[in-house]
Amino acid sequence: MSIDLALVGATGAVGRTALDILAERDFPIGRLRLMASARSAGKKVSTAWGKVEVEDLDEADPGGVEVAIFSAGASRSEAHGPRFVEAGAVVIDNSSCFRMDPRVPLVVADVNDHALESHEGLIANPNCTTMVLMMAVAPLHRAAGLRSMVATSYQSVSGSGQKGMAELSDQIEQFRDDQPALAQGRWTDPGTEVYSRPIGFNVLPLAGSETRRGYTDEEWKLVNESRKILDLPGLAVEPTCVRVPVMVGHGLAASMWFDRPLDRSEAVRILSAAPGVEVWEDIPPTPLDSAGRDRTLVGRVRETVGAPGGINLWAVGDNLRKGAALNTIQLAERLKL
Amino acid sequence: MSIDLALVGATGAVGRTALDILAERDFPIGRLRLMASARSAGKKVSTAWGKVEVEDLDEADPGGVEVAIFSAGASRSEAHGPRFVEAGAVVIDNSSCFRMDPRVPLVVADVNDHALESHEGLIANPNCTTMVLMMAVAPLHRAAGLRSMVATSYQSVSGSGQKGMAELSDQIEQFRDDQPALAQGRWTDPGTEVYSRPIGFNVLPLAGSETRRGYTDEEWKLVNESRKILDLPGLAVEPTCVRVPVMVGHGLAASMWFDRPLDRSEAVRILSAAPGVEVWEDIPPTPLDSAGRDRTLVGRVRETVGAPGGINLWAVGDNLRKGAALNTIQLAERLKL
Repeated sequence: MSIDLALVGATGAVGRTALDILAERDFPIGRLRLMASARSAGKKVSTAWGKVEVEDLDEADPGGVEVAIFSAGASRSEAHGPRFVEAGAVVIDNSSCFRMDPRVPLVVADVNDHALESHEGLIANPNCTTMVLMMAVAPLHRAAGLRSMVATSYQSVSGSGQKGMAELSDQIEQFRDDQPALAQGRWTDPGTEVYSRPIGFNVLPLAGSETRRGYTDEEWKLVNESRKILDLPGLAVEPTCVRVPVMVGHGLAASMWFDRPLDRSEAVRILSAAPGVEVWEDIPPTPLDSAGRDRTLVGRVRETVGAPGGINLWAVGDNLRKGAALNTIQLAERLKL
Repeated sequence: MSIDLALVGATGAVGRTALDILAERDFPIGRLRLMASARSAGKKVSTAWGKVEVEDLDEADPGGVEVAIFSAGASRSEAHGPRFVEAGAVVIDNSSCFRMDPRVPLVVADVNDHALESHEGLIANPNCTTMVLMMAVAPLHRAAGLRSMVATSYQSVSGSGQKGMAELSDQIEQFRDDQPALAQGRWTDPGTEVYSRPIGFNVLPLAGSETRRGYTDEEWKLVNESRKILDLPGLAVEPTCVRVPVMVGHGLAASMWFDRPLDRSEAVRILSAAPGVEVWEDIPPTPLDSAGRDRTLVGRVRETVGAPGGINLWAVGDNLRKGAALNTIQLAERLKL
């Protein structure tokens, strides 16, 4: 059994990671096609299945594609996803385009796999921050019934793609001889392209762009996608999304309360048994630890000290892997074609 | 009128900042004495009042000192604070040593100045993270009665003194040619002295050391000092303290609920009128913006979207200034000697 697979957005940060993961997992590739914007078309990319020339997405014929993984942004998914579906492909889309469409399942592998069954050709991959959080939250929810959650993120720059990583690198370099001055607030603005404020030696308490009621699109994703994945339309979520000067790995601090009190030992037991999760009790898991790993790392599991009965914890995961490429591939593996 | 002042811990990160601030504010110095551990004794430090030789704290005679500002760690405060008080000085202590002592007022200037009046020679300066948070929380509490709060920090390395800043600088340098590898989790551990895990291109979800119930001393300070400063012994606080690769400036994301609902416009109005606070509505205030500034910057003021009636906000302040040195000097200015 083999699958003819198209990777759309093959030259981006997530696309490259997807190629690594397909090889690591011995994904049963039949024909592999790589697609991207006209700018990257014609490039030859080395893969575990030989060199593959990148096709121009605008021109590419989806005929014969069984599964297409889209990681090329919402506007390309909107423009091209439906025509791939019409041509018979199952599209697993990593953009925000179809996530909240009630006909499209939004699936975290190992969390709500059952939702895959109802797909009509399109399957949505959740936002990277939500994905990491769900890996830690869903097992506790299943055990005790999640009621409310305050979630605060520490999101790496690769969440903005390769250009986010380049901007952090450039600014670290520009600030290199300026570090004592940074401490006194005497610094020269390095100029920004990707972010609204410098990210080198800084944190930016606004990830995404502001939309409704002062919350950013990233923050609304955390609210709405969590509700859809957990099938809890009334779930109370307070989201704050913050960018930090880290290359890869999204961290989240979460405070959660449930229908019944949950104590630390039960929470640790549940999380330790959850697929795709590793509980670190002795060393606090950091973004650097999560980079390159498939599992979501959970640490600092504590009983709440304010409003009793809840759990405070920290979760961190590789936003390019479980947060994006890995999950799309896990979904592809679990499809009944 | 002039004040004979001793600065204990004069050569540390906070001590140096205190010397700058004393000069900026034209503090009415009579005689200025600088004290530190034996290691720094004998050094000559340039100040706005001429060169001053650093005295060995162990040997220093406190006679004649009217106000002593201690920023030399809890064990030195414990060993030497009382003998300065006995010699007639008012001691303003920046360590955790006396903060929770019921006889010692714990004061944030512009928040609970009235508590100064009851001092018996010792006054405690709050922890830097708590200080920044209190500047934003206290005005809202006065208006609407704070009930509960979830607070998550983004603490800079200067909170660990000059050695914290040096460790971040060193690691950034060591990771310099290793940035692509960081993204794949292939990095060489740079070794750590100050922190338990690398801080360069990373965040460390454990600031301080774990004490009770899985919470760190930093986190308990956030709970207990907030309760004492706001005179709310039953206040519900969920604290998570995280170190970030920033030189100066502690940020906090806070979700708060009150005795009555508070809407965004009222919260912004209250905070805009609060002394020592600046509300930034158009640009999200970052740690880099806060460095070198006296005021606490507040941004992203939003009505809660989960449990209604509360406020989510972001606050950031220079942890060496308002978080430490500035507040001690503001307290010294407000003393009735």
